[in-house]
Amino acid sequence: MSVLNDAARAAISSANLAHLVTLNADGSPQLSAVWVGMDGDDVVSGHMGDRQKLRNVRRDPRVAFSMQTGVVNAMGLAEYLVVRGTGQVVEGDAAALLQRLAHVHIGPDAKFPPGENHPMGLILRITPERVSGIGPWANT
Amino acid sequence: MSVLNDAARAAISSANLAHLVTLNADGSPQLSAVWVGMDGDDVVSGHMGDRQKLRNVRRDPRVAFSMQTGVVNAMGLAEYLVVRGTGQVVEGDAAALLQRLAHVHIGPDAKFPPGENHPMGLILRITPERVSGIGPWANT
Repeated sequence: MSVLNDAARAAISSANLAHLVTLNADGSPQLSAVWVGMDGDDVVSGHMGDRQKLRNVRRDPRVAFSMQTGVVNAMGLAEYLVVRGTGQVVEGDAAALLQRLAHVHIGPDAKFPPGENHPMGLILRITPERVSGIGPWANT
Repeated sequence: MSVLNDAARAAISSANLAHLVTLNADGSPQLSAVWVGMDGDDVVSGHMGDRQKLRNVRRDPRVAFSMQTGVVNAMGLAEYLVVRGTGQVVEGDAAALLQRLAHVHIGPDAKFPPGENHPMGLILRITPERVSGIGPWANT
């Protein structure tokens, strides 16, 4: 069974930005915000070119991301989901993935990335291993 | 001069949750969301008891946090601020700091933490060293 329950999958599939951490060569944390979606039981993001976070994942696959869902609980605290897992960088149709995520994050008419005939890009696949945060994320 | 310009200071002082990363003993990233505010040129968070993130900072002071501001730019991308810096855990009046931050994050009538006569707690002080993200964060 995936560590992601239906609520976590729904949060990841919605217009919530993932604050993604990877590890630099010196072990320090590298943070950036990315669009993510589900692909089977993996969490995926699309990248048209190589980036520091992807080089980091190739060297050390330990990643984590945190996202807010916009829900505030009865105590007034903002709900958020943290996922820890193992990342893998693979070649793939990053433009098609980005276009799918742009429809979620920008809107149904969004065209992203701009232009046509995009080359193959890179996909970051994260296999979730542990969830935490504030919200209904625990598998029961 | 601080690496934080006025826009970054304003974002940190507003009701934006910080997705804070610290480093576990095995070097893996630990993420959680915290309320933060400014104290002089440092970024501070309050903690009534010891927590994994604080133990991590004592061992390895390299920290980073990411926050969204709710602003969307002309391309439809969500603005966010990433701060990297050095953390230090000190004893302090965490309840008073949390109460100040609760007024920002929950509202002017919020009472947090509940109760009276709180013991001293722990303050995480982050000295910012580098900013990135999407937004008007570059010092000019």
